[in-house]
Amino acid sequence: MDSDKSGEAAKITIQEPKADTKGKGIDGAFIAPVMVAAKAAQRPRKGWKKGVAIVDLVLRLSAIVAGFAATSLMATTDETLPFFTQFLQFHAQYNDLPTFSFFLIANAITSGYLVLTLPFSIVCIVRPRAAGPRLLLIILDSVMMGLTTSAASASAAIVYLAHNGNSSSNWNAFCLQFNNFCQQVSSAVVASFVVSALLLCLVVLSAFALRKMK
Amino acid sequence: MDSDKSGEAAKITIQEPKADTKGKGIDGAFIAPVMVAAKAAQRPRKGWKKGVAIVDLVLRLSAIVAGFAATSLMATTDETLPFFTQFLQFHAQYNDLPTFSFFLIANAITSGYLVLTLPFSIVCIVRPRAAGPRLLLIILDSVMMGLTTSAASASAAIVYLAHNGNSSSNWNAFCLQFNNFCQQVSSAVVASFVVSALLLCLVVLSAFALRKMK
Repeated sequence: MDSDKSGEAAKITIQEPKADTKGKGIDGAFIAPVMVAAKAAQRPRKGWKKGVAIVDLVLRLSAIVAGFAATSLMATTDETLPFFTQFLQFHAQYNDLPTFSFFLIANAITSGYLVLTLPFSIVCIVRPRAAGPRLLLIILDSVMMGLTTSAASASAAIVYLAHNGNSSSNWNAFCLQFNNFCQQVSSAVVASFVVSALLLCLVVLSAFALRKMK
Repeated sequence: MDSDKSGEAAKITIQEPKADTKGKGIDGAFIAPVMVAAKAAQRPRKGWKKGVAIVDLVLRLSAIVAGFAATSLMATTDETLPFFTQFLQFHAQYNDLPTFSFFLIANAITSGYLVLTLPFSIVCIVRPRAAGPRLLLIILDSVMMGLTTSAASASAAIVYLAHNGNSSSNWNAFCLQFNNFCQQVSSAVVASFVVSALLLCLVVLSAFALRKMK
């Protein structure tokens, strides 16, 4: 069968010299339509990948905004109560609790990391089929997601205690006194959870992009 | 140029009738060696992917052990102090603090999830080139990593308070009294951090496996 086909192919070349002069020939005649079909199939896939890369950049920019919001909200917590005794002035700041200091450092690191990865995200838009930057991003994003989630959850546990206290361990709520302090810290924690949710979305998106990288 | 090439191709078919009678022709003669080379390149890659899938299963089994250890350690915390007053008996249990209850639920969910994903991990060993199960695993592993890290960090913040207290907010350490309780809870938190580190390794491993899935 195959030998017949090749015979036919040879015949076609001899019988149709016009096709040859157009600069295609046997190989061209058979391969060209296949390549056109393959390119047509690649075009929507490439467009899809470019779309994913653009969504990645938008999510990353949102995470940067949320990250800097969380960091600055926590860094600027500072409340002094209007009443004071002879020896003591009531004053609350983030570094009164070590967990909040960890929160500040972790969120600053994550925000800085997100800014540094912007060029890689842009490379993924320009070259949607490059798997290297995507792999780097998915690994570092997972690590940073762990760090941010950890900081946000630890602070959430403390904020919960500050709001509600705990009778079993005799820890009293202080949010009734330091209301502004508590509100600002709660906002910072929420912003940090937004960052970690966005990082989770980025990891899932990168996983899908790597899956289709064929 | 192309027309010259096609002319050569036609010449070869006519000059070598033996190649045709073997049932290969022009297409076969060019494609066969390429396919052999591609198969030779695929063989070690398939072995590498199988290795990754086996490491995935081993890490998953370790995470199950650590997850159940964390859950059972937290669930069995129960300490009653030998001294008591007329109205009050000093007693500590995990459900005295809501954070520890969350820890128990989150670790139980993660352990259950890890057991349920064992079949998918085995499918990845049997069929190393299947991208579907791997994609499912990387997404769910990321979500579960977030949950476990969150539970472990929140409890770590509380355990830190229980050990050291906090003078600014007037929260006293109770670990000097409830020593066994604190030790057991600390072990549970460490086990939970081990689970979340193993889940991070699983995410990174799956990302590498998806990258090479070509």
